[in-house]
Amino acid sequence: MRKIKKALISLSDKSGLKEILINLKKYKIEIISSGGTYKEIKKLGYNCTEVSNFTGSPEILNGRVKTLHPKIHAGILSIRNKKSHKKDLKKNKFQEIDLVIVNFYPFEKIINETRNHKRIIENIDIGGPTLVRAAAKNYKYVTVITNLNQYNELIHELNENKGSTNIKFRKKMSEIAFSETGYYDSLITNYFNKISNNIFPNKKLIAGNLVEKLRYGENPHQYGAVYSLSNKSRLNQINGKQLSYNNLNDTFSALTLSKTLPKNTGTVIVKHANPCGVSINKNKQESFKLALNSDPISAFGGIVACNFKVDKKTAVEMNKIFLEVVIGNGFEKKALNILKRKKNLRIVDSSNINIDDIQNFSSNFNSILLQTTDLKKFTKRDFKVVSKVKPTTVMMKNLIFAFNVSRFVKSNAIVLVKENSTVGIGSGQPSRVDSCKIAVNKMKQFNNNNWQNIVAASDAFFPFVDGIEYLVQSGVSAVVQPSGSIRDKEIINFANKTGTILVFSKTRHFRH
Amino acid sequence: MRKIKKALISLSDKSGLKEILINLKKYKIEIISSGGTYKEIKKLGYNCTEVSNFTGSPEILNGRVKTLHPKIHAGILSIRNKKSHKKDLKKNKFQEIDLVIVNFYPFEKIINETRNHKRIIENIDIGGPTLVRAAAKNYKYVTVITNLNQYNELIHELNENKGSTNIKFRKKMSEIAFSETGYYDSLITNYFNKISNNIFPNKKLIAGNLVEKLRYGENPHQYGAVYSLSNKSRLNQINGKQLSYNNLNDTFSALTLSKTLPKNTGTVIVKHANPCGVSINKNKQESFKLALNSDPISAFGGIVACNFKVDKKTAVEMNKIFLEVVIGNGFEKKALNILKRKKNLRIVDSSNINIDDIQNFSSNFNSILLQTTDLKKFTKRDFKVVSKVKPTTVMMKNLIFAFNVSRFVKSNAIVLVKENSTVGIGSGQPSRVDSCKIAVNKMKQFNNNNWQNIVAASDAFFPFVDGIEYLVQSGVSAVVQPSGSIRDKEIINFANKTGTILVFSKTRHFRH
Repeated sequence: MRKIKKALISLSDKSGLKEILINLKKYKIEIISSGGTYKEIKKLGYNCTEVSNFTGSPEILNGRVKTLHPKIHAGILSIRNKKSHKKDLKKNKFQEIDLVIVNFYPFEKIINETRNHKRIIENIDIGGPTLVRAAAKNYKYVTVITNLNQYNELIHELNENKGSTNIKFRKKMSEIAFSETGYYDSLITNYFNKISNNIFPNKKLIAGNLVEKLRYGENPHQYGAVYSLSNKSRLNQINGKQLSYNNLNDTFSALTLSKTLPKNTGTVIVKHANPCGVSINKNKQESFKLALNSDPISAFGGIVACNFKVDKKTAVEMNKIFLEVVIGNGFEKKALNILKRKKNLRIVDSSNINIDDIQNFSSNFNSILLQTTDLKKFTKRDFKVVSKVKPTTVMMKNLIFAFNVSRFVKSNAIVLVKENSTVGIGSGQPSRVDSCKIAVNKMKQFNNNNWQNIVAASDAFFPFVDGIEYLVQSGVSAVVQPSGSIRDKEIINFANKTGTILVFSKTRHFRH
Repeated sequence: MRKIKKALISLSDKSGLKEILINLKKYKIEIISSGGTYKEIKKLGYNCTEVSNFTGSPEILNGRVKTLHPKIHAGILSIRNKKSHKKDLKKNKFQEIDLVIVNFYPFEKIINETRNHKRIIENIDIGGPTLVRAAAKNYKYVTVITNLNQYNELIHELNENKGSTNIKFRKKMSEIAFSETGYYDSLITNYFNKISNNIFPNKKLIAGNLVEKLRYGENPHQYGAVYSLSNKSRLNQINGKQLSYNNLNDTFSALTLSKTLPKNTGTVIVKHANPCGVSINKNKQESFKLALNSDPISAFGGIVACNFKVDKKTAVEMNKIFLEVVIGNGFEKKALNILKRKKNLRIVDSSNINIDDIQNFSSNFNSILLQTTDLKKFTKRDFKVVSKVKPTTVMMKNLIFAFNVSRFVKSNAIVLVKENSTVGIGSGQPSRVDSCKIAVNKMKQFNNNNWQNIVAASDAFFPFVDGIEYLVQSGVSAVVQPSGSIRDKEIINFANKTGTILVFSKTRHFRH
């Protein structure tokens, strides 16, 4: 237990201050403060010593240097029961400071508000983090409060212990304090990295805000949580049970693909983080129905993402099957009412979420793999027709659509498309011909007797003729694939021999 | 361009100091310093003002408070061309400080060396980060050096500009400075999180050290890099071309599974981040050959991880096929010589890498999904035999092996095992019965006429009888799966009707 006699308060955000003052007064805790906080305390009618009076040093450089003074920092940092420290304080007429309440200049808020570099730099707090770090280091004796959310906890602690705090509380506050200073400087370094276009700095800092702890991770015996890298990224869930770890993982997969489709037309159905049906159609209901038709069995318990505002008719269709999550670029009121009839159905509004050219990372064995995302838009210029037979404009559109879908399917990926809808997706196979077989089997299973004018996309090149041969035998008339195999020529010959349209893309699209 | 007149130096690691002093002297730069650095400078025979003389304030609290003084910080933070700042300095007889060279108390080194909490806390630097942050904020006028690696750059910059530095250089140094302070406090908060067992703090900081930039990411049009979360995690590559992003991803997958297998027996072959062959055998060569036999076509261009010291005979076998990476728990000299005949073959020694119960994270849409890993060891106690026919000890061992492999295969996963080796792996399918078919097809393709006494593992429950029925018809005589389906009873009945051994596991093992 440490009795608190003297507190230093320095707040950028002054909300909640009065409540604190009432309680500090109750336990006769002296207050030191400076600048705006000092004025506010006086205005609220409480006693307070100004830092400059306390230190005997004037506040200088328009407030850039206020608390950076040995009298303040020795007061915070002294080891209370150490003779030499006691002597040092006494000799210099320094006094112990037992409680530090600080929040920082709002750097995060400012970078979201402005691109004015000078203003951003001016909002880097120097004194605040120093006070907090000193107090947090010396938590054995000093209580440090860095966040508005902790005020009630502090008040409770003081009331519980008649003006003292216990070591457990101080340690917990110290842990949070270092997370605040680390977070603050992570934002600063990320800001600098961004403006200097330094995507792979020597020291990379990733700073997450807890959105929520999840019931569990990928499996019930794993703990899981979701964090946000910025305030903008949060999903707006408007109905149903809490999204699970796997729901979120699938939702992110579905959304990424969904956001790359032509606006207000696209439906994506995802199962186990892999698309099992994708369609674009101006008729919303058709868009959903065709995506579903691609593999209605896998869609069971799946995740649907529409990049359009979900209407009543589509909602009625959706309700006919069991879905875990429905994501819409907004929802018509009537549609929402229909969907909400299923109490547990998780409904997510994604209209506020944008695809940025964000970085993508994953961890393993204490390593992080970091890369830029594979979200570049496709145009015709990425493709080169290498067969004698040339594709029509419509067919080219279908090829682009198929190739775009293929990059979101786990490798090796084969995507079969007919009239703007997938009709067969083969994924996750180490051998490309196996993915071809899976895609064709799906097509035959769910799209009876309609196996003509199919276009196919492959996320990477065919190493042998066997894969493309299997596709052509199954009704595929146009194929897009990256080039690069030593057998490219053989494959072109095969296409020409069979009258197949063959298009080479510039880019490969592995996804693991 | 800013001429440097006065420098403040405060170093925990004093290597390279002499070189700096020689160059500062060349440009008649005054030096201020304190404590050990001051002594070292004097010892090396250079002029230096002690901080306490400069400020007129004694160094107190055994060095806890030295540089936290307005004279120092105003000298660093003043805006040089601002009248009021100039006036403030003049009035207080403060002087501008143009260069700050600081490195911090070695917190990272100490936490790797000791668990002595008091010693760790004492190694949290307060003054150093404050100096650095102040200088970095004011980079328009001040140069800040935080890392030994920058000394040569600084010296070059000074020589280039006759004792001045230019703004581009100062900005770059400032960017690095904030990465150092952010990194430092991230380590501190992670240390606190660890000792308080706080796995999901409100603010989560992930601090990576760049190991290397990669040629590209998953695909050639993506940028990629690999970072390390600690010094311990680095792979020791001893031959071949640089590991690519996909090599690393596959290597991590292979290693994770490999490290869970009984010591000195296991071979794992991975393609596209999925195992395509796994075997345990005391005979090393056999272990490799049997893993390869599981799917020799997919193994082409794959990644092999052995949890044993690779010997000559195994190396000879390995050289017969094209592999991207060979990972061994060490290599016999002769084995290494054989493997090195393939100049491009990437060879990795993993003997220094341990599986910790680490956290696992991935990013998407500015969100981070964070979870604990699925690395718990299996024992018999995790399993409950629910069929009338009971497994033999040998069969139970095979079931445990199969189930362990299944958790590292992308869902839905079906793993077929015969005598401690996989003989068919089905992965990445949204429908479980499809994964069964893929696994059985692999078995029939590569393991001619030997389809008896096969055991099967499923990473999650069978939702219908169809999957298990297909397996039993294909020669599977024992199945392990988590329970939880509403059709569990039907499945038990089916097992009893067909004399199949059925085991329920406590845990599910999705992996996406």
